Amino acid sequence: MEYRAAKSLFLSPRSVVFIGIPRKSGPGSLNPVDNLRKWGYAGKIDLVHPHVSEIAGIPVLSTVSELNEPSDLAVVSTPRDTVPGIVVECGRKGIQAMIVTNQGFAEADERGRELQNEMLEEAAKFGICILGPNTLGTANAFDRFNSSFMALDREDIPIGLICQSGVFFVGVSHLIGGMGIGIDVGNACDLNIIDALEWLADEERIKVIALHAEEIGDGTRFLEVARRICPRIPIVALKTGRSEEGARAAASHSGSMAGNDAIVDAAFKKAGVLRVHETEDLMYLVRGFARLPPMKGPGTAVVTLTGAGGIILLDAMDKYGLKLSRYSQGTLNAIQSLSPDWMPLSNPTDIWPAVMKHGMRKAYETALRDALADPNVDGALCIALGLGEAEQRYLGAEEVIQQLSLEFDKPVVVWFYGTHPSDTAKRFEDRGSALAVPSLETGVRVLASMARYEKWKSNRRYET
Amino acid sequence: MEYRAAKSLFLSPRSVVFIGIPRKSGPGSLNPVDNLRKWGYAGKIDLVHPHVSEIAGIPVLSTVSELNEPSDLAVVSTPRDTVPGIVVECGRKGIQAMIVTNQGFAEADERGRELQNEMLEEAAKFGICILGPNTLGTANAFDRFNSSFMALDREDIPIGLICQSGVFFVGVSHLIGGMGIGIDVGNACDLNIIDALEWLADEERIKVIALHAEEIGDGTRFLEVARRICPRIPIVALKTGRSEEGARAAASHSGSMAGNDAIVDAAFKKAGVLRVHETEDLMYLVRGFARLPPMKGPGTAVVTLTGAGGIILLDAMDKYGLKLSRYSQGTLNAIQSLSPDWMPLSNPTDIWPAVMKHGMRKAYETALRDALADPNVDGALCIALGLGEAEQRYLGAEEVIQQLSLEFDKPVVVWFYGTHPSDTAKRFEDRGSALAVPSLETGVRVLASMARYEKWKSNRRYET
Repeated sequence: MEYRAAKSLFLSPRSVVFIGIPRKSGPGSLNPVDNLRKWGYAGKIDLVHPHVSEIAGIPVLSTVSELNEPSDLAVVSTPRDTVPGIVVECGRKGIQAMIVTNQGFAEADERGRELQNEMLEEAAKFGICILGPNTLGTANAFDRFNSSFMALDREDIPIGLICQSGVFFVGVSHLIGGMGIGIDVGNACDLNIIDALEWLADEERIKVIALHAEEIGDGTRFLEVARRICPRIPIVALKTGRSEEGARAAASHSGSMAGNDAIVDAAFKKAGVLRVHETEDLMYLVRGFARLPPMKGPGTAVVTLTGAGGIILLDAMDKYGLKLSRYSQGTLNAIQSLSPDWMPLSNPTDIWPAVMKHGMRKAYETALRDALADPNVDGALCIALGLGEAEQRYLGAEEVIQQLSLEFDKPVVVWFYGTHPSDTAKRFEDRGSALAVPSLETGVRVLASMARYEKWKSNRRYET
Repeated sequence: MEYRAAKSLFLSPRSVVFIGIPRKSGPGSLNPVDNLRKWGYAGKIDLVHPHVSEIAGIPVLSTVSELNEPSDLAVVSTPRDTVPGIVVECGRKGIQAMIVTNQGFAEADERGRELQNEMLEEAAKFGICILGPNTLGTANAFDRFNSSFMALDREDIPIGLICQSGVFFVGVSHLIGGMGIGIDVGNACDLNIIDALEWLADEERIKVIALHAEEIGDGTRFLEVARRICPRIPIVALKTGRSEEGARAAASHSGSMAGNDAIVDAAFKKAGVLRVHETEDLMYLVRGFARLPPMKGPGTAVVTLTGAGGIILLDAMDKYGLKLSRYSQGTLNAIQSLSPDWMPLSNPTDIWPAVMKHGMRKAYETALRDALADPNVDGALCIALGLGEAEQRYLGAEEVIQQLSLEFDKPVVVWFYGTHPSDTAKRFEDRGSALAVPSLETGVRVLASMARYEKWKSNRRYET
């Protein structure tokens, strides 16, 4: 089957058969049926196990041949030596799409490489597309399907994830900020990262793609596909195996050839892919693109309660290429009116003395509204308090910031500090479109990369 | 009063008088008495306010002169023009130590600079030491005293904090990892960062000092004092105002001269100070020194459940100077015995296939115990799952890791991934000495910097 046509079989199958499945279900059993039920999968589930007649309330078949009709997708988790035979059985039954989850193939040893080749040869005979081996498979929150045996949370968010490891599926909320659609290509023996990119290219429900790759594969095709996607959907990439030790480990993890890192870098730049070098930057840049309106230029407003925080932001802005917006005279007058005479305000705007005089909400609203309304401002970095419930009633600015984030079509990023920053950030993101970040520097990198991307869109070039 | 002798007046005063205090107490009132009561301060509290007879249940004096005897410490929060006069009143009463919290002095305008000088001149006449202005003052969790009007949580932890901004006090749990003793020098018109360092130099309750500085001041004296402290207490420094815009903002924040950043860098290296460039690194390196035993060399063991995570660690280790330990044959045999034949294990040790065969606890315990027992290993980086309660019972490794962290005198750093990484990390740190980190790269930087520090201790030199 042609890989493009296989998309729906892998991402929204009407029926799925699991071959090799734990006998038990429930916590600790790693049974994929639990996950599918939690997600509300509406398609047909079949199970194949040689020695059991029922699992998780579903009658079990002893071989694939007993299926009434071919499933859209087969998910295989059996000892590696049995896999080529199972591919043949699936082929005979008319199954066209398979996910092979097990480890022990090209990433392991000589026997593993032989088995992977054998499996591929059999698949080719029947026109089967294979995802894996060494993968958790696919997840599609919109259509309530996932093939993972690890418990996943379902969220309808416009984030696409393409990766070469289950860690990104299992740690998705922590590493990527969640996924609407996820594809773990594992060893990528057949379907690879570029195929997965094509699947997401025309996906209307996705606003940003997070890419984890140990190997890029066919550079020319990668460039062609990525360059086609990037003008509509930004791709944020974490390419690993940069170091010698890392590259060696990539070979024994997914059988990947990590390649020369400078070449990868150049290819990403040419294609329009935004490369990040740390997992936390991957997460927050992806979340930024998913939540925020575009950052149309580098002009940044800083609203702060702390001079020291403003200075930390300025140091980082200088490093990553954001510029302090020069405010118009009207903006300056409005902001100045809040503050004691001895404090000449501009940008960054330290509103603490204004808070002491007028209260948090009035001071924050005036300063941030005027900043966002200023034509020289492309986006805003805010510092706000995250305190215990009682204090936050007086010193919180969440509602004001979120309200303004909805009124203006400009990205607003907030760093909370105090005794309860994380709780505040979580509550904060339930409403409005502003983004909370765990550190000042992360916030700067998010807006700076978003501005770089917009510039790339206009001239199709990343400055180095 | 000589600044060294003033330490106890500022950090463990037997009595304190607040001059200028909110009329109300309770949430939102920013009343320092609330904070002192929450902390269980056992000393005498006096309040001075011209128009109120009682605040927070304490009878209020209308002037300092009405005090029965001089308080150890006066905390002043009155309009800036009144401050020089209040210094005189305090001097006449015999008070020797003052914290001036207000803004509007040398950081603001010409009038502010004049007032700051006037205040200093008056203080000199009476031999008063001043901390500030523009400060939250001091906090000493061990002796249950703090001068802050912002609510603070009290924790007896061996972390000393010296800063030039209230943001580090208010955000201390998020920016530093907490403080046992904290000193905000603000504008540092009299007592400065170097004096504060001297206060902590002989402090037995402190294992690490977090330093936030906008200005270093007298470079020769800084070098002399820091070099004396660093062999016993590591100093982790975030020096801000590195960029041109940042330096300008520092001048109008704390009246600081940020100075040439390359010179600061060289001075830190010479003194043995560890410099960090991001707030998150400040926090986790400080927490690392506070929690972990020393990292005596760069040799690192990696125990992981995910090949991809191992590769990300290797890339970061290469960048920051940690080395993969070569395991002895005995270690290799023990680790190999857990795994399928097709998976040749060494370092990094991907134990996922062993988990599938033997369960999480057995696999983790064998791999990590053998690694920590290996003489080539100086410390360990671990990857573990943080799942919901039900799944964590089967797939959690917290107890095993914490148990081993107590058995071996080597630092163990853990990154949790899954649906509940933060909850797991929090529970995890309640027992044992291992440290949880929010990202793989942060974990690497912590151990790498700790290893650099140990090397500096032995040869008193940082390689560039």
